[in-house]
Amino acid sequence: MSQYWSPAVRGLTPYVPGEQPREQVTKLNTNENPYPPAPGVSEALRNYATDHLRLYPDPTSHALRTTLAESYNVSVAETFVGNGSDEVLAFAFQAFFCHDAPLDVPSITYSFYPVYANLYGITLRKHPLNDQWEVDVDALANASERSGVIFANPNAPTGHAHSLDTIESLLKRVTNRVVLIDEAYVDFGAESAVSLIKRYPNLLVTGTFSKSRSLAGLRLGYAIGSPELIDGLQRVKDSFNSYPVDSLASLVGIEALKDKDHFDACRNNVIATRERTRQRLEQLGFEVLPSKANFVLTQHPDFEGAQLFAGLRERGILVRHFNTDMLNNFLRITIGTDDEMDSLIEALEAICR
Amino acid sequence: MSQYWSPAVRGLTPYVPGEQPREQVTKLNTNENPYPPAPGVSEALRNYATDHLRLYPDPTSHALRTTLAESYNVSVAETFVGNGSDEVLAFAFQAFFCHDAPLDVPSITYSFYPVYANLYGITLRKHPLNDQWEVDVDALANASERSGVIFANPNAPTGHAHSLDTIESLLKRVTNRVVLIDEAYVDFGAESAVSLIKRYPNLLVTGTFSKSRSLAGLRLGYAIGSPELIDGLQRVKDSFNSYPVDSLASLVGIEALKDKDHFDACRNNVIATRERTRQRLEQLGFEVLPSKANFVLTQHPDFEGAQLFAGLRERGILVRHFNTDMLNNFLRITIGTDDEMDSLIEALEAICR
Repeated sequence: MSQYWSPAVRGLTPYVPGEQPREQVTKLNTNENPYPPAPGVSEALRNYATDHLRLYPDPTSHALRTTLAESYNVSVAETFVGNGSDEVLAFAFQAFFCHDAPLDVPSITYSFYPVYANLYGITLRKHPLNDQWEVDVDALANASERSGVIFANPNAPTGHAHSLDTIESLLKRVTNRVVLIDEAYVDFGAESAVSLIKRYPNLLVTGTFSKSRSLAGLRLGYAIGSPELIDGLQRVKDSFNSYPVDSLASLVGIEALKDKDHFDACRNNVIATRERTRQRLEQLGFEVLPSKANFVLTQHPDFEGAQLFAGLRERGILVRHFNTDMLNNFLRITIGTDDEMDSLIEALEAICR
Repeated sequence: MSQYWSPAVRGLTPYVPGEQPREQVTKLNTNENPYPPAPGVSEALRNYATDHLRLYPDPTSHALRTTLAESYNVSVAETFVGNGSDEVLAFAFQAFFCHDAPLDVPSITYSFYPVYANLYGITLRKHPLNDQWEVDVDALANASERSGVIFANPNAPTGHAHSLDTIESLLKRVTNRVVLIDEAYVDFGAESAVSLIKRYPNLLVTGTFSKSRSLAGLRLGYAIGSPELIDGLQRVKDSFNSYPVDSLASLVGIEALKDKDHFDACRNNVIATRERTRQRLEQLGFEVLPSKANFVLTQHPDFEGAQLFAGLRERGILVRHFNTDMLNNFLRITIGTDDEMDSLIEALEAICR
């Protein structure tokens, strides 16, 4: 604590990301994609005329947004890009959720939301998941005066995804504030709500290039919504940093969006490996929550989460363990390659023997 | 204006960056460096193993900060890096200047500061420049209760730089709040205040890779200050975006810092061209403010700023004209190559004939 800090900054509880270890481990802790980005990315970087880096990027990221708009069948004015979906989410909290009323969120969802809320002085109203570990959409919809609604779909770290019909049922009931659906994991088997943005001007969908496009190292995220919501995000962005997306990120992002075959191949591999992993975990006595994401949340009736985490770590396998009351017994395991998941299963067999 | 926006966002007046035109022009409007980045940058990008982009970057940017610390002869704990110095400045406003008292600034300085102040609800107390168009350091020092002091040194868009002694005289008088010296342009002939950070724990110095390192397209900025100030910046950053500096930016930034010969050659060229340009402008009857930056602020007794701006634009030369009472008659002209400045002088000769 320093005498020079602003009062609000003294009260912050920053987000703690999953570990990025320097030693060699099987890394199943931060939901990275086990497959490389599209081959066009390497080529674009090899051929890039570095002299261009001396010039500022386009502050509107027009070229990247045009490619994004084509990919999602929306107009450029319905797209926004930022330095990771984390930055896009931060802008959205400031642009849409800074009202006096509370923001409705599930009690278990992406753990950065409470951090943003604290940063911008927003009160959260947390709604428990139902007994199937699913986001309780009715509870979110029925709450009284609010500043907005946000959750991840598929949700993190449970992996459960609601159908498009359920999302629409929420949008029919919440019309005066923004409903933000965070689709960081949507490409691994869930339905995107992007198709609803033209009918619901208060729907903002966010996404990331970090997971299904294998570009976590690049920091590129997006939002899709009505032009008036995009405009609100631009106002915050243009009051914060004129060019959050740099020239290389833009170039690489365009290459990734263009290669639909690579994208489909990688996500189909992850989905197949996830189902195979789920079966093998169940054979070892684990309960595995149904997942439409590139991770599974799992627990064993006879072993504590912390114990399993430590046992795996000893064997050079890093997974995520959350030290909270609700999730204490669980492990969140990223879906890697088949070989990586074989190593995981072998290690768990040894630990649970 | 949208019903979905937060009240504060409705009141924002976003920053407007200099134009990034798509057509071919002689671009002297946004203080970019006319020389390419260090040759090691191209090589690093060509040899980069793109597969690494599937992994998140190091959230602490340890490797880049280590190289930065070595370059500036400080410890890693005294360094911070972000997505352009614009992001670093935004974090600093939130971390240090969100107090009830006003923030002391010169009336003419980097025009993003009032935008940040508006974004974070900070009141500005503006102090006029002296009759030499210099920041009035005594006025800044003598103000009563405040949230902090910020200005650019060299200042923008005047180019004037105060000596290290003058900066230290300010620090001796302002001890209870942060003094932020924005050194975006320091490498073109001014003295850096980095050497003072060990004696003044409330001094924060910010800088950028955009100007003297020819990397505007990459978005990389830094802050250097006492560990307690750096810690304040980290708290805000970790409540906003865990990884604002992506893996490629980090790699490229390290290459740029390592090549001291290229850095010196480029900045010496810019300085020589600046002095040559100043003389030639004076021969045409222009008043040119003394500049330690990679631009000059200049006016002509017989021609209006807007008229000169338009005349240059017609001839394919883009400079910056500020539509404010104080600066209305001036042009801010970035120092390009000698050839580019020859074209500028020829065009001005034609316009002023």
